[in-house]
Amino acid sequence: MKRTSLHTRQCPVARSLERVGDQWSILLLRDAFYGLTRFDEFHKSLGIAPNMLTRRLNRMVEDGLFERRQYSEKPPRFEYILTARGWDFRPVMLTLMNWGNRHFAPEGASVFLAEKASGAPVELQLIDARSGSPISSNHAITAGPAANSRMRERLEAGRLRRAQNLANLPIHSPQETAP
Amino acid sequence: MKRTSLHTRQCPVARSLERVGDQWSILLLRDAFYGLTRFDEFHKSLGIAPNMLTRRLNRMVEDGLFERRQYSEKPPRFEYILTARGWDFRPVMLTLMNWGNRHFAPEGASVFLAEKASGAPVELQLIDARSGSPISSNHAITAGPAANSRMRERLEAGRLRRAQNLANLPIHSPQETAP
Repeated sequence: MKRTSLHTRQCPVARSLERVGDQWSILLLRDAFYGLTRFDEFHKSLGIAPNMLTRRLNRMVEDGLFERRQYSEKPPRFEYILTARGWDFRPVMLTLMNWGNRHFAPEGASVFLAEKASGAPVELQLIDARSGSPISSNHAITAGPAANSRMRERLEAGRLRRAQNLANLPIHSPQETAP
Repeated sequence: MKRTSLHTRQCPVARSLERVGDQWSILLLRDAFYGLTRFDEFHKSLGIAPNMLTRRLNRMVEDGLFERRQYSEKPPRFEYILTARGWDFRPVMLTLMNWGNRHFAPEGASVFLAEKASGAPVELQLIDARSGSPISSNHAITAGPAANSRMRERLEAGRLRRAQNLANLPIHSPQETAP
């Protein structure tokens, strides 16, 4: 998919994917969350060609996810520090890690999020901080003030389909907790 | 990045990306969360070539994210129902949507998650359901029982780098909340 193909799309998921829609970007963010900052460290961790790594990092600097900083003059060496926008991706990373552990780690977790004090694994849950309630079928994706007609059509098509499918035989109960 | 290149990797993020590492997969899951199920609906929503859409959907059925179901015999028509594994991706989708709304929607949100009863926008927060505490610098990514030496090295490199960077000038305070 070309970068430009998403440019005109309204959807915030599509816009996010435009910045992190390839695997390398997300793996770079993962390594940055671990604490890695230096070009050489990313290179060693990911094992991708240096010119490709440079291109990815430059794009992520342009998109405001990393700030580039020189840490050595001779030889010239650079590191890439997460910006506030980059840090703000952390909930996506943690939920993605959680999903991977739940579904694609038959031999057990290689990494997991733990409470530092006790070492106990975290049981991740998304809540609405206003009410403290877990996200559930009491919440729904809603058209915002900036929604165009295409977005409203998609939401309406989904609403109708959900209503219809609930009248049929759902394959499993989570069907009813549609956003 | 080839599918095979991630096969041997332990990281649950890499393994997740192997299933949803291209933009189309995530946009298909988005539409499925809206309620769309039918090939024609996905096609209309995404505007990609039918053969590409077929290939993506087949892969996601193989990976256990969708179940394929015939809803019409004449003409033969199919729909794709989210499995429990597919549904379980929802927290990733919601946090990704939230990130897009926060950083890439200067004109305002086109869609957002709302509490159905009040219509009020949800303020998404990740917590540890065991303690009820928000995820913070009290939590850390930790090597699990299945971690190999490569994974342990990466975590250790990150730990050292974070310790060193905290001794330098951090660009901004969230630096201290490293996982």
